Amino acid sequence: MRVDGRGDRELRPLKITRKWTKYAEGSVLIEMGDTRVLCNASVEDKVPPFLKGMGQGWVTAEYQMLPRATGTRNQRDVSKGKLNGRATEIQRLIGRSLRSTLDLTALGERTITLDCDVLQADGGTRTASITGAFIALHDACKCLMDEGMIERYPWSSWVAAISCGIVEGKELLDLCYEEDSICQMDMNVVMSEDGKIVEVQSTAEGYPVERQKFLKLLDLASEGIQNIISQIKEEIK
Amino acid sequence: MRVDGRGDRELRPLKITRKWTKYAEGSVLIEMGDTRVLCNASVEDKVPPFLKGMGQGWVTAEYQMLPRATGTRNQRDVSKGKLNGRATEIQRLIGRSLRSTLDLTALGERTITLDCDVLQADGGTRTASITGAFIALHDACKCLMDEGMIERYPWSSWVAAISCGIVEGKELLDLCYEEDSICQMDMNVVMSEDGKIVEVQSTAEGYPVERQKFLKLLDLASEGIQNIISQIKEEIK
Amino acid sequence: MRVDGRGDRELRPLKITRKWTKYAEGSVLIEMGDTRVLCNASVEDKVPPFLKGMGQGWVTAEYQMLPRATGTRNQRDVSKGKLNGRATEIQRLIGRSLRSTLDLTALGERTITLDCDVLQADGGTRTASITGAFIALHDACKCLMDEGMIERYPWSSWVAAISCGIVEGKELLDLCYEEDSICQMDMNVVMSEDGKIVEVQSTAEGYPVERQKFLKLLDLASEGIQNIISQIKEEIK
Amino acid sequence: MRVDGRGDRELRPLKITRKWTKYAEGSVLIEMGDTRVLCNASVEDKVPPFLKGMGQGWVTAEYQMLPRATGTRNQRDVSKGKLNGRATEIQRLIGRSLRSTLDLTALGERTITLDCDVLQADGGTRTASITGAFIALHDACKCLMDEGMIERYPWSSWVAAISCGIVEGKELLDLCYEEDSICQMDMNVVMSEDGKIVEVQSTAEGYPVERQKFLKLLDLASEGIQNIISQIKEEIK
Amino acid sequence: MRVDGRGDRELRPLKITRKWTKYAEGSVLIEMGDTRVLCNASVEDKVPPFLKGMGQGWVTAEYQMLPRATGTRNQRDVSKGKLNGRATEIQRLIGRSLRSTLDLTALGERTITLDCDVLQADGGTRTASITGAFIALHDACKCLMDEGMIERYPWSSWVAAISCGIVEGKELLDLCYEEDSICQMDMNVVMSEDGKIVEVQSTAEGYPVERQKFLKLLDLASEGIQNIISQIKEEIK
Amino acid sequence: MRVDGRGDRELRPLKITRKWTKYAEGSVLIEMGDTRVLCNASVEDKVPPFLKGMGQGWVTAEYQMLPRATGTRNQRDVSKGKLNGRATEIQRLIGRSLRSTLDLTALGERTITLDCDVLQADGGTRTASITGAFIALHDACKCLMDEGMIERYPWSSWVAAISCGIVEGKELLDLCYEEDSICQMDMNVVMSEDGKIVEVQSTAEGYPVERQKFLKLLDLASEGIQNIISQIKEEIK
Repeated sequence: MRVDGRGDRELRPLKITRKWTKYAEGSVLIEMGDTRVLCNASVEDKVPPFLKGMGQGWVTAEYQMLPRATGTRNQRDVSKGKLNGRATEIQRLIGRSLRSTLDLTALGERTITLDCDVLQADGGTRTASITGAFIALHDACKCLMDEGMIERYPWSSWVAAISCGIVEGKELLDLCYEEDSICQMDMNVVMSEDGKIVEVQSTAEGYPVERQKFLKLLDLASEGIQNIISQIKEEIK
Repeated sequence: MRVDGRGDRELRPLKITRKWTKYAEGSVLIEMGDTRVLCNASVEDKVPPFLKGMGQGWVTAEYQMLPRATGTRNQRDVSKGKLNGRATEIQRLIGRSLRSTLDLTALGERTITLDCDVLQADGGTRTASITGAFIALHDACKCLMDEGMIERYPWSSWVAAISCGIVEGKELLDLCYEEDSICQMDMNVVMSEDGKIVEVQSTAEGYPVERQKFLKLLDLASEGIQNIISQIKEEIK
Repeated sequence: MRVDGRGDRELRPLKITRKWTKYAEGSVLIEMGDTRVLCNASVEDKVPPFLKGMGQGWVTAEYQMLPRATGTRNQRDVSKGKLNGRATEIQRLIGRSLRSTLDLTALGERTITLDCDVLQADGGTRTASITGAFIALHDACKCLMDEGMIERYPWSSWVAAISCGIVEGKELLDLCYEEDSICQMDMNVVMSEDGKIVEVQSTAEGYPVERQKFLKLLDLASEGIQNIISQIKEEIK
Repeated sequence: MRVDGRGDRELRPLKITRKWTKYAEGSVLIEMGDTRVLCNASVEDKVPPFLKGMGQGWVTAEYQMLPRATGTRNQRDVSKGKLNGRATEIQRLIGRSLRSTLDLTALGERTITLDCDVLQADGGTRTASITGAFIALHDACKCLMDEGMIERYPWSSWVAAISCGIVEGKELLDLCYEEDSICQMDMNVVMSEDGKIVEVQSTAEGYPVERQKFLKLLDLASEGIQNIISQIKEEIK
Repeated sequence: MRVDGRGDRELRPLKITRKWTKYAEGSVLIEMGDTRVLCNASVEDKVPPFLKGMGQGWVTAEYQMLPRATGTRNQRDVSKGKLNGRATEIQRLIGRSLRSTLDLTALGERTITLDCDVLQADGGTRTASITGAFIALHDACKCLMDEGMIERYPWSSWVAAISCGIVEGKELLDLCYEEDSICQMDMNVVMSEDGKIVEVQSTAEGYPVERQKFLKLLDLASEGIQNIISQIKEEIK
Repeated sequence: MRVDGRGDRELRPLKITRKWTKYAEGSVLIEMGDTRVLCNASVEDKVPPFLKGMGQGWVTAEYQMLPRATGTRNQRDVSKGKLNGRATEIQRLIGRSLRSTLDLTALGERTITLDCDVLQADGGTRTASITGAFIALHDACKCLMDEGMIERYPWSSWVAAISCGIVEGKELLDLCYEEDSICQMDMNVVMSEDGKIVEVQSTAEGYPVERQKFLKLLDLASEGIQNIISQIKEEIK
């Protein structure tokens, strides 16, 4: 029995609120249990220096937690003058995941920035960010198409992400914070709707893990992601 | 007739949601029209170096806007390595306002930090932050009393804030962004429930303003603040 | 009786030395009692990015205290990598005050930067900076006119500033440091020569203040500023 | 046929030079083809604040490339005031990998820092760093045991790392830079000598990858790592 | 004939004003021609970490130019987040020079910081800073002795500094800015009153210089420094 | 007898390895006893802003020590957000020395950056850097000539550097770390092959030094530099 009563292969309730703020071209409040992330997509008519004049666009992400998104208050990064290492790692992961299935030439010379701000954290903030950012990116692209700025939809497959891990010897899907803090291996997986792999990041905590268990986690994640994508499609259509 | 149809002396709808996040000792989402600020109060058992061993507490504030709280995206301060000048000015104002009516010795050697994060900005974010932070501070103090950590309530009077300004020659209460961006004088006022002055900041834009008009703004603000404090008391009791 | 023997409505001796350094287009050493600020105006043929091609100029200010301008030495901001919050707040105030009565289009695409460096601090450094910077700005504009760079004088009214406050229940003009450190409300006022308001910043320390006393401070400041402007006109003509 | 004539499952020549510098407790120059990383282990009698008084040690890593380790010169991070995102991500990976099989209580209250400085980069610098750092860590621990500072060896299993990837549709082991820059999926794997998984990081570039191919990469990496560990044991014994 | 009419071996007028500010334990405004540096000595009852508990004091220096000390305005270092390289180099030189003849144990566990702020620059600011700082240091030590804080005078010999250089083939003493900007070799020399060498820094600009000419510069500097020390002794006694 | 058995006027063994890395246009590993510096020269087709359009090139240097180049580990500068003062001073010295005999117009609008990274430090790292950087610069220029990018060799004379100092009353050439840490005066000298002076930096530690001894050090350095230049010419021809 898990701390919140779920089954081992059970996701937490997923809630998606689109247009949560009024300015952003795509704005999604994603809630996965008590984890709550605001994902805003902003379109700008410029590209980073390394892409100037190359006729393609760019998608990038920024990730931050509010100081009191967690049980104890964290000092703001700005007061230390630089982004913390964990956030740096996560926002690079989000950016790569979003670009992996995207046709950047379809965007024209535009940059879409996905701001993922964690308002409340209870495990799985990076995967919730990826899933929410993908929907916000979808809405921003839709907005560009509706205004005739771009001609075709820049991707062909939905992408979502989930975490899983080994807790007290059992493989569990969608870890909450309490589970995450004691897990022996955690895995973050990003997959497309046809079950292909976009990104796998898996870390053993304490001791190495057998290949067998690693593969079981991969299966669990795959199942969870298909479930999430179904829910998103229901929401979007 | 104002851009949003209000009368000159009319506030925008005020909505206060307490316990908006689950971790903070006080957590208030304050909405003033489309302006939306999350005010979290965090209690920590330490004081800044200059107060160590002096048997009193401290209250401080931090203010930030999410990158897409506004019509166009603003770069995060952390990527520039330091807080922007406007936010610096505002968070100092919030901190001073909250401390002005507080008995810091009642807190013991504790610091309460008020994080005011603007999720959506439509004018008056600094005054909404002060009003919201005061409620979050109230809830955090209540929480300390309920747990027996402090013995008495650290203040005697409610405090709230509002902006007003001269727009196209008319004195208006509670400016929205569109009004704020063209006003000839703007004024931010913080007052206690008995109508006394905690802080006044008033700036002429373009040309100096007659004393008469300045005083009229002060009256407008006073009226607005009494209205807000009534609504808060209704909410809290 | 005040600590330095002055009457309640009495200014400290004001001394203005123009051309204190030889390079700056305007260079004023302003002394207000023991407060001593060097205000240098530098003209540059460029404008900030947000004004490029708009056919107008810009006026901005920077404020710093030398490490030993005060009773104990303060660490330099550069060694902490960023300007302190107080200086940030003050230099924004100086810049706004100078721009409030200025016709920026008369400057052409030029920036005038007012560097206000406090060499010795004894209360009222921000208001002395505004008053001194205004004179340095005047001299720099005069210099531009003499060289035929600009055609008309960019303003129509003198501006000056003063502080006042409530100390041990009494309203006092032009606080020195010893008074400032114990005052119940302090007020910084910027006004034009015709008695109109450019900026008011007033903060209660400890407990809120009655509207009546606030207005009395405003009158005191008004009187002091007219006095200062008379002295400046004597000096300049 | 690969760019450097190797077979698909063939490692580049591995060369390990221990005691490359004279001061560090462990100092290893690891060369994997033209990739050349200096891994220095430094022992210090202190732990980070979060471990103080907990009777255990800590192992951490720092990773940097010399400006001209690559084909074109990169600006030093110090001149930008902060570590770049890629290095941040990599040094976190190295630290986690080294700690994964380590008994930190065996170290006592000591920190061992592994500095991985890339002197020349030709692909696989992060995995070479992990492998080299593990040997330097071994030598530093040996040194501590020889001096009677610690009583037992703090780990039970060797760990090493390798990269692999899909290039033009083929799964290849140990990518050089030319291969890495065009691969469709790259995978970095850290494993223990008994074939268990410490860390897997795998990223699709361009389009998602079938589970089948992902597993084939995992096998390739596993084989490569066993080969590397054999070579290390030969070197160390 | 030199640009300001001086002879080749002639110093510019030297003016020393002690107690220029009222707070610092030693405060000297030194003027060497149009070069004007404020040197404040601050005594603090603490030492840097590397000297804690070693029963000795420390002397250090900080050097900065005001933004408009020069013909064109320089951006403040704080806005770039770090001290510029030239100032770093100079303040290290000042600190070393002051410590060279000082008995740091005589100070007890105190730090004296010499802030050298260039108010107006016309060549030779670093050597004027050393000379002025030495006098400020003297006054601060005198003040410590008068208050019975230290028992003996911490040095035995006066120290001063001067610049010289080769301009259009001629060796000149005490270069002004116009000469300095075109010199073929410049030399900064710090010497004690008995003609011994504390520091020599000499740089060829454009092409190397014969040993003979180098020695002639050294003689010129030696003569100039004795002259300066005579003037200081006259002033101090 | 010196700590490493050398005579007073004896250099440590000098070893120069060219093309130590494969990417840089000039790459030299210079070893002077146990001091080991990697000097890479990188050519870029751009000049700093102050030289744009002036038809000449630029040569600059950067200097850093690896964290464990020394007996105890030093924190990386990047983690403190800025280069340390000592490295700032040294890289300015290296840059000036290299430019002193160079015809920058012969380079065209190119910048050559010399990265001097100290891999192991045992005294004399700054002078070894200058000597090594000069050879790397030579190789980079040779490379530009071979490719027909520049027409003539940009200098006419070899330049090298050495340290010397007074240790326990004796003048010694080429100090190792143990000697350097206790010397009464240290001197760093840069000279051309015809014995002219490029740069002299000499600092007394503890007490001032007689002119006589200063000149003896200068002679020692001169002799050492001629010896080094002979060895370099042997290596290069």
